[in-house]
Amino acid sequence: MSEKTVRVALDAMGGDNAPDAPIDGALLALTRSDEISIMLVGREDDIRRSLSGKEYDDSRITIVNAAEVIEMAEHPVNAIRRKKDSSIVVGLNLVKDGQADIFVSAGSTGAVLVGGQLITGRIKGVDRAPIAAVYPTTSGGAVLIDSGANMDPRVKNIRQYAVMGSIYAREVMGIQNPTVGLLNIGAEEEKGNAFYIEAHKALKETPGINFTGNIEARDFPMGKVDVVVCDAFTGNIVLKTLEGTAKALLGMVKQGLMSSLRSKIGGLLIKPALKGTLKKMDASEYGGAPLLGLKGLVVKTHGSATAKEVCNTLLQCPSFVNNNIVEKITASLAELEENEPQE
Amino acid sequence: MSEKTVRVALDAMGGDNAPDAPIDGALLALTRSDEISIMLVGREDDIRRSLSGKEYDDSRITIVNAAEVIEMAEHPVNAIRRKKDSSIVVGLNLVKDGQADIFVSAGSTGAVLVGGQLITGRIKGVDRAPIAAVYPTTSGGAVLIDSGANMDPRVKNIRQYAVMGSIYAREVMGIQNPTVGLLNIGAEEEKGNAFYIEAHKALKETPGINFTGNIEARDFPMGKVDVVVCDAFTGNIVLKTLEGTAKALLGMVKQGLMSSLRSKIGGLLIKPALKGTLKKMDASEYGGAPLLGLKGLVVKTHGSATAKEVCNTLLQCPSFVNNNIVEKITASLAELEENEPQE
Repeated sequence: MSEKTVRVALDAMGGDNAPDAPIDGALLALTRSDEISIMLVGREDDIRRSLSGKEYDDSRITIVNAAEVIEMAEHPVNAIRRKKDSSIVVGLNLVKDGQADIFVSAGSTGAVLVGGQLITGRIKGVDRAPIAAVYPTTSGGAVLIDSGANMDPRVKNIRQYAVMGSIYAREVMGIQNPTVGLLNIGAEEEKGNAFYIEAHKALKETPGINFTGNIEARDFPMGKVDVVVCDAFTGNIVLKTLEGTAKALLGMVKQGLMSSLRSKIGGLLIKPALKGTLKKMDASEYGGAPLLGLKGLVVKTHGSATAKEVCNTLLQCPSFVNNNIVEKITASLAELEENEPQE
Repeated sequence: MSEKTVRVALDAMGGDNAPDAPIDGALLALTRSDEISIMLVGREDDIRRSLSGKEYDDSRITIVNAAEVIEMAEHPVNAIRRKKDSSIVVGLNLVKDGQADIFVSAGSTGAVLVGGQLITGRIKGVDRAPIAAVYPTTSGGAVLIDSGANMDPRVKNIRQYAVMGSIYAREVMGIQNPTVGLLNIGAEEEKGNAFYIEAHKALKETPGINFTGNIEARDFPMGKVDVVVCDAFTGNIVLKTLEGTAKALLGMVKQGLMSSLRSKIGGLLIKPALKGTLKKMDASEYGGAPLLGLKGLVVKTHGSATAKEVCNTLLQCPSFVNNNIVEKITASLAELEENEPQE
């Protein structure tokens, strides 16, 4: 193992398809990258059972036993407080104690959010760590922040999202001088509800970001900006609308293709060409969504994540660690706080 | 003309494609329905120029001159107050004075909204008339209310939307006992931001509606409920996300089809089968969106409405008028007000 190896703590019990999806994703990622080593956190028996008969480089995999599992339906705060030996709490503690560089989980979003804040802690100035999701666009991908953490943010938080999202787009996605848009119902400055009108004004005066104004929801699947900022309620609804619409539409196209012999033959002919298109619009290609604003690196993947999605998330981890995301966010938020107008 | 003829005042100057799109839509609608007569409201010269050379039944078309035009970018309140001889103000006055049964416009949403409230007036209990948009789903269509009027509603308004949306779904769309869902980020009652958690509680206690709980954005393109209620900011963003995603996805599918000779041939073979699918997902098939809660009937169509969309909107008008939507909403809201808990 080289000195640079990124040590990932992976929640082996998280998600609908655990432990197989996280474990298969881990094994796949190890074959694709020599930059990572993986700690599988969870019930040792279950992990060994899933690993048995599979081929892998055991010098880069370790098992960290955690006897408890936090279920999706559990109350996040209670679960984190009571289940000290759960895979989420144990995994986050590995990051806190410096034994792992980053924690990845497909488990309960609420529990990962609460655990992230309570165990690894928040960077000074952050009220609640937002989730930065990368969503597919026709021109590649863009960041939507906050996509699910803080349901009732303050205007001050929206400025922080813009700063953190820009750092993420630049350092992890490699976008030079990323553009930032405020999600809104129209391009004009006075559009939106009272909160968004205030947020627009605040973003115009935020230093160090490339704010290009409001972005309408109809424009962002086309990738008009690199970073979209919004409150978590709206952000989550937008992401799920994207997902639902794509699913409904593709289902109808498929149904249409099966409606006659002629269209069935046509469907076979277009299959290879469409595969690339659909891959580009497939959210699982884009890996996980980091919680930004924490003192440690924490990445959440879909509860329904497949091995492929877990693998893609793991392959992103070195770019988070090696680009010092936490340090850069800490420095930028301190600077922002100095410039903060009195609310 | 029969006694039952529905008299529609149509804004001939409204929308990006005026006056041709509204006028061509009107002529098309007259050939498809004998239940309507149309007053074309706008600059008489422009209207006559557009009509010239076209075939139509002139006993069912009249021209009502209005010398002014409210532009899309104008401040709605100022425009309505100052331009007394605009097509929007004149058209709304025709409804108010009982000379027309319903007003249809593809002009400035803001001006139609403000004009509707100021000229025709609001039903008792309504703070601001919501827009009820019908959006395409895989199972037909559903109502999204409010899709663009009241950016900062109170919880009380959300209850009114549920009642008005149910009346619309039942009377105009013919859905028996329509189900109502609250747009939210999860199915559980305690999900959402502070406002939506309150709104959920209020809807549970609203009499006369078939409330089925929260509806996640990913489920509603599948038509899981008949009426989706939400604040206008979220509603507008959801509608535009639907629109943008469908456009981005279909654009990519087309691009994929053009990528090789094989896929081009396949594309030709599937064309007829896909046409039906795309028609089902085409918002313009669903006509206009009424402003509910006004003392008169007012319907807004897209600023970019084509003749086909205007025609579909006009064909809906008899169902609004003949089903006494305004009277039914007035009665239901009075009943709701009696049951209103103190805020």
